[in-house]
Amino acid sequence: MHKIYEYPKSRAAFEHACQVIPSGIYGHQGPAEGCYIPIEAFPLYSQKAQGSYLWDLDGNRFIDYMCAYGPNVLGYNDPDVDAAAAKQRAISDCTTLPNPIMIDFADLLVDTVACADWAFFAKNGNDATSGAVMCARAHTHRKKIVFFKGYYHGVSPWTQKIDYSGIIPEDVVNNIYVDWNDYDQLAQAFEDNKDEIAAVIAQPYMHGNFADNIFPAQDFWAKVRKLCDDTGTVLIVDDVRAGFRMDLAGSDHYFGFKADLICFCKALANGYNVSAICGQKHMMNAMSSLAFTGSYWMSAVPFAAGIACIEKMKRLNCPQLLIDQGTKLKDGLIETARKYEYDLHVTGIPSLFYLRIADDPTLMLHQEWIAECVKRGIFFTNHHNHFINASLSDEDIKETIEIADEAFSVIKDRHS
Amino acid sequence: MHKIYEYPKSRAAFEHACQVIPSGIYGHQGPAEGCYIPIEAFPLYSQKAQGSYLWDLDGNRFIDYMCAYGPNVLGYNDPDVDAAAAKQRAISDCTTLPNPIMIDFADLLVDTVACADWAFFAKNGNDATSGAVMCARAHTHRKKIVFFKGYYHGVSPWTQKIDYSGIIPEDVVNNIYVDWNDYDQLAQAFEDNKDEIAAVIAQPYMHGNFADNIFPAQDFWAKVRKLCDDTGTVLIVDDVRAGFRMDLAGSDHYFGFKADLICFCKALANGYNVSAICGQKHMMNAMSSLAFTGSYWMSAVPFAAGIACIEKMKRLNCPQLLIDQGTKLKDGLIETARKYEYDLHVTGIPSLFYLRIADDPTLMLHQEWIAECVKRGIFFTNHHNHFINASLSDEDIKETIEIADEAFSVIKDRHS
Repeated sequence: MHKIYEYPKSRAAFEHACQVIPSGIYGHQGPAEGCYIPIEAFPLYSQKAQGSYLWDLDGNRFIDYMCAYGPNVLGYNDPDVDAAAAKQRAISDCTTLPNPIMIDFADLLVDTVACADWAFFAKNGNDATSGAVMCARAHTHRKKIVFFKGYYHGVSPWTQKIDYSGIIPEDVVNNIYVDWNDYDQLAQAFEDNKDEIAAVIAQPYMHGNFADNIFPAQDFWAKVRKLCDDTGTVLIVDDVRAGFRMDLAGSDHYFGFKADLICFCKALANGYNVSAICGQKHMMNAMSSLAFTGSYWMSAVPFAAGIACIEKMKRLNCPQLLIDQGTKLKDGLIETARKYEYDLHVTGIPSLFYLRIADDPTLMLHQEWIAECVKRGIFFTNHHNHFINASLSDEDIKETIEIADEAFSVIKDRHS
Repeated sequence: MHKIYEYPKSRAAFEHACQVIPSGIYGHQGPAEGCYIPIEAFPLYSQKAQGSYLWDLDGNRFIDYMCAYGPNVLGYNDPDVDAAAAKQRAISDCTTLPNPIMIDFADLLVDTVACADWAFFAKNGNDATSGAVMCARAHTHRKKIVFFKGYYHGVSPWTQKIDYSGIIPEDVVNNIYVDWNDYDQLAQAFEDNKDEIAAVIAQPYMHGNFADNIFPAQDFWAKVRKLCDDTGTVLIVDDVRAGFRMDLAGSDHYFGFKADLICFCKALANGYNVSAICGQKHMMNAMSSLAFTGSYWMSAVPFAAGIACIEKMKRLNCPQLLIDQGTKLKDGLIETARKYEYDLHVTGIPSLFYLRIADDPTLMLHQEWIAECVKRGIFFTNHHNHFINASLSDEDIKETIEIADEAFSVIKDRHS
């Protein structure tokens, strides 16, 4: 039996935080988001991280399958990335004029990403998706944007829901929402909004929260690409979450099509702060026409980290490595669940797997199982996809499956 | 006579960049923005930076008065800030759960900034201004935002101009623009939009580009504050550019009033990538209600850098130091200009001075003078305010004034 973790220091820190930080912890890393149910099962503040491990403030060690919600792709504190970043830091980071390492990074992305003739750098995934939408509007002189229901494209008002706090109708009035994989509905939306649609924005497959992840239907992307071509619409792939965990050439390349614009962040530099828009040649003038920048957007250190990260991902053949490790884990978890007569659904690409115990549609049983895993040192969350990083060992996977087994056993006993 | 700089490597890098990066260099750091006229006088890519100096790609050394457009407040590669950041990096940076150093940073800002009962962290100055506007809308359930003409609050569509590329009417339909320092006009705007104004957003004084900077008129801020109080409107101070160069307690404190929300970036962490919204207690629930976050927003290294930066700024009494150095420079430049019978206007707080030779309303003469300074190693720009950093020495100021003298002499000869 594994030790059951407790979190007194984490709780105390959170209580203090609530006095001076709105929500104590905001966004997806905080308890308000719904990833951490029941909250008692989860730590909230961390002490340190290394490789595939995270230690909470009480010193409990976790095998971390959230990977900072994506940025940790090689392992925390990767020595090659950190060395490249430290070398650049000794020279310069955020200065009045950019360092040419920015050009080196753009060259590398153009070499690596199939649809990329150019690269534009920013700081948030949200900067990339917002810049891509502005670029599409500049290019087409149209207003409307098509989204697939279940999407997440960041936090700017244009991408939020009308009933969210601080959002006004004008923010979302040009949004059109269609069902994922429903080509007929998409074609009808184009028919109903002829010559008004600037862009379709989509993740490479549907990896929303609170639902099984769904791959594109046969020929779906080919048909969407053709519809965009026929109507002069910009096809934007939001690869912020899946990028470099499916295909180093871009997740559009994995699915056999070519985006006009593709957005990267997270896995781009192993946690160093950079995001990117890459695009085809015909989009470059529109991108150049935007007034779009920020104080830190040309800082040199994240470019050095990004170069080292992509080069190492290439050496490791990273997406395949992550998919292979994810497949071992997935197979082991499904088999273990079956021992206890649970039907565990594991969806999405295995490097970005989504978990759901399908036996209970209320998801309560699933939450109970996740809680028992977390309290024993496996950092899963309930309703968000998970992430594999390259430092995750076979030993880690074995330990994960052992703990998952114990957690299944606990909930089986509880409900027998 | 100083050597005249040439920039062949810088030019070659820029030409290469134009193949793979939209505009080669975008935003305020690039030639498209209009800060660098004539472009031939300016380098475009840098090699390294240290203290108050920047070296371009051709190895030319500049005394850098742009300071990365603000982030360099202590001097490039400040050893205290860099040591604190490196120490945190060895432990953790971007991880699944935040490190409690986030709480320490929030505590420090609450202790330091007069209006701050809490702090919320993001990555861009633009994240801070956008979050503040969303927070104001959430708090008031109103839509409209008042801007002062000449403002700059970042690059999100809501803060751009209707005729900018990629911007649609809905982005700016709730914006109201009034003249800086015209209280009657502001009061009329409130009268015309009764119960519809969510926020007034303003820099602490008018430090726009292409125009002399203008301090608030007598009692202006007191009257604006009262108008906001009387109407339940949120007063947002955008201290992204001026923050910590006027008053460590916030530029609102410098002018004797208290913002509801204040936005920081740039000088907050000496170039490490972090921005912040601070606010009064009554705004905390609205801020908590937003769906607003990003992949890197809780990264620990910039918090460590921010703490070290603010603590060092306190030890140095930084705003006063920067104002004192800026005043020496300003006095020296004005006196030198007078020797050549030029009327050099130096406006804004001396730590953030704006330059204009007032003898030629076309600004051509001013641009010629700036060009002659730059080509001799003083990194000024034409139509943007400048920045002082704490490592700028009396020797640097002396050298600056000598070069400015030579530059005045050159243009005087040219136009005699």
